[in-house]
Amino acid sequence: MSCVLCDTDGGELVWRGDKLRVIRAYEAGFLAFYRVIWNAHVAEFSDLPASDRQHCMEAVALVEKALREQLQPTKINLAALGNMVPHLHWHVIARFEWDTHFPNAIWGPAQRPRDLEQEAVVRAQLEATHADIRAALVKAETPDG
Amino acid sequence: MSCVLCDTDGGELVWRGDKLRVIRAYEAGFLAFYRVIWNAHVAEFSDLPASDRQHCMEAVALVEKALREQLQPTKINLAALGNMVPHLHWHVIARFEWDTHFPNAIWGPAQRPRDLEQEAVVRAQLEATHADIRAALVKAETPDG
Repeated sequence: MSCVLCDTDGGELVWRGDKLRVIRAYEAGFLAFYRVIWNAHVAEFSDLPASDRQHCMEAVALVEKALREQLQPTKINLAALGNMVPHLHWHVIARFEWDTHFPNAIWGPAQRPRDLEQEAVVRAQLEATHADIRAALVKAETPDG
Repeated sequence: MSCVLCDTDGGELVWRGDKLRVIRAYEAGFLAFYRVIWNAHVAEFSDLPASDRQHCMEAVALVEKALREQLQPTKINLAALGNMVPHLHWHVIARFEWDTHFPNAIWGPAQRPRDLEQEAVVRAQLEATHADIRAALVKAETPDG
């Protein structure tokens, strides 16, 4: 069966490890929208053994931390849905009170038009954010000592 | 500051431990909609230390497994959003291809009317599902040996 997350990176590749990768999604109006994608094709979080679940969620937490430190979002949203693409991927989304949907979920109705000035401020911080994500994930995957 | 998840269980209490609780939410059309709520008031997943993040996600995985085994859903949806109530809670939702929103997120537009016959089948399985959730969480919190 063809699966877009088996066949492609699934977005702008930020970092790739043996077990998972981090991409930035191309979602209009949500500049700091990342996905932690498990490289192997599994559908559900509980399909992974406990050690892999822990590995996966530590990566999610490290991406979340980098977004919080660099972008000071109003809130972080985490989600693993996969109704359309049943290949395990975690959305890690920096939400801002000025974004088109806040406080709604990004899948709900928009609340306001895009704020291109605020988006430009976020865009200018993405390179530093990606550097932080890479550094944190490399460090997490390096054995102690 | 008043917080509904500090002041109330936040739904039908299924299980309560020292650090977290599991409730069934009252959401029309989504009978098997659970939340794993961290008892202490923290806003973000990465506010927890690594050991608590692991504890929290193992509870999420155990609830997910109980839903999968008892209800055979089309997909599980996991999410920690908290835009409206910034107190860490994980949605664990059994989704079915016949539910009102599938394959959309539950926060998106409905796709069809409710199927009360299918909902009744799920409702009849909830008691056994809750027994499985409680047994799994009690076992996970019991020290080995």
